[in-house]
Amino acid sequence: MRILEHSGEPLTSAQIEALTGWSSNTIRKDISYLGGDETGAAVGSSSGYAPEVLLPAISRALGLDRRRKFCVVGLGRLGSAYLNSGTMEFGGFELAAGFDTNVNRTEILKSPVPLYPAYKMGEVIGRFEIEIALLCVPAENAQAAAEKLAASGIRGIVNFAPQVLTVPPSVAVRNVYVADELRALAIAIN
Amino acid sequence: MRILEHSGEPLTSAQIEALTGWSSNTIRKDISYLGGDETGAAVGSSSGYAPEVLLPAISRALGLDRRRKFCVVGLGRLGSAYLNSGTMEFGGFELAAGFDTNVNRTEILKSPVPLYPAYKMGEVIGRFEIEIALLCVPAENAQAAAEKLAASGIRGIVNFAPQVLTVPPSVAVRNVYVADELRALAIAIN
Repeated sequence: MRILEHSGEPLTSAQIEALTGWSSNTIRKDISYLGGDETGAAVGSSSGYAPEVLLPAISRALGLDRRRKFCVVGLGRLGSAYLNSGTMEFGGFELAAGFDTNVNRTEILKSPVPLYPAYKMGEVIGRFEIEIALLCVPAENAQAAAEKLAASGIRGIVNFAPQVLTVPPSVAVRNVYVADELRALAIAIN
Repeated sequence: MRILEHSGEPLTSAQIEALTGWSSNTIRKDISYLGGDETGAAVGSSSGYAPEVLLPAISRALGLDRRRKFCVVGLGRLGSAYLNSGTMEFGGFELAAGFDTNVNRTEILKSPVPLYPAYKMGEVIGRFEIEIALLCVPAENAQAAAEKLAASGIRGIVNFAPQVLTVPPSVAVRNVYVADELRALAIAIN
């Protein structure tokens, strides 16, 4: 979707293949399942797929057409970096709040969104209808923070802490481990 | 491997399944391909797989037994966060240097490793035998930086910039896009 966002021109399935590595056959088949746009018009033409038609069709099909809110939990170096990343990083998701157990941080840090002490998680997440958390706490605090988030009604966690999380099935987790990325590269270049 | 590192006790394939979601069958089969440890001793016993035997066997099989060096390119908020993350984040890989086009940053930033202006990339990467780069520059500079890294002999890039990179086939790329993780969660909790 990033590719489509950055392309002003219609893209053919062959061009998308060159950019993504997915076969143009798969791309054409997948896109055909989308049906048309909201008016029923086809998403493709002989010159390719027009980003302004294809993007909303994909978003609707995946449930991405609703702007969802997320928060940053743990405002150390990594958490503050994400707090101040700017909207481009977040592809349409809305940063709504930050949390830290350290009240010095929540009071002093520069931030584009309000910051709260961790004990207010339940109240703030409910009130703002925050659905997703970027979990940026140290590994040893990650499980406890994840449990607190689950109890606060969070539905998804992007986990940056190098720690496997155990959460209720109602909470989806995506792990981003730099060490795993380094290992994957080491194996690829072996 | 993180699970094994943090477990002092032998783990059964059923326990590994509970932690990873991979089936215990697959786990047993994959581990059987490792053969034994360097003395030929089996990696498992009736009480499970002993981390101190299994980990080195996996590492050898994947070519992870060599300590590889990496650098951080782009010392804004995210890059400096990784610069100061500590070794636990990097699972045995060695942070060797940081680079930025902004000489103010390379002169002033607090860092556990030497920092260099970007124009020294070729020389430093060759001298230190750095193999992998964490690419933390803004999206609009990512392609140029990746080309510079490729020309400097880098072999793998973990790309944090929300930008698709075009690099020579000799360079492996892993993309870490927060927006994609958020989207994946939004789809999962739809």
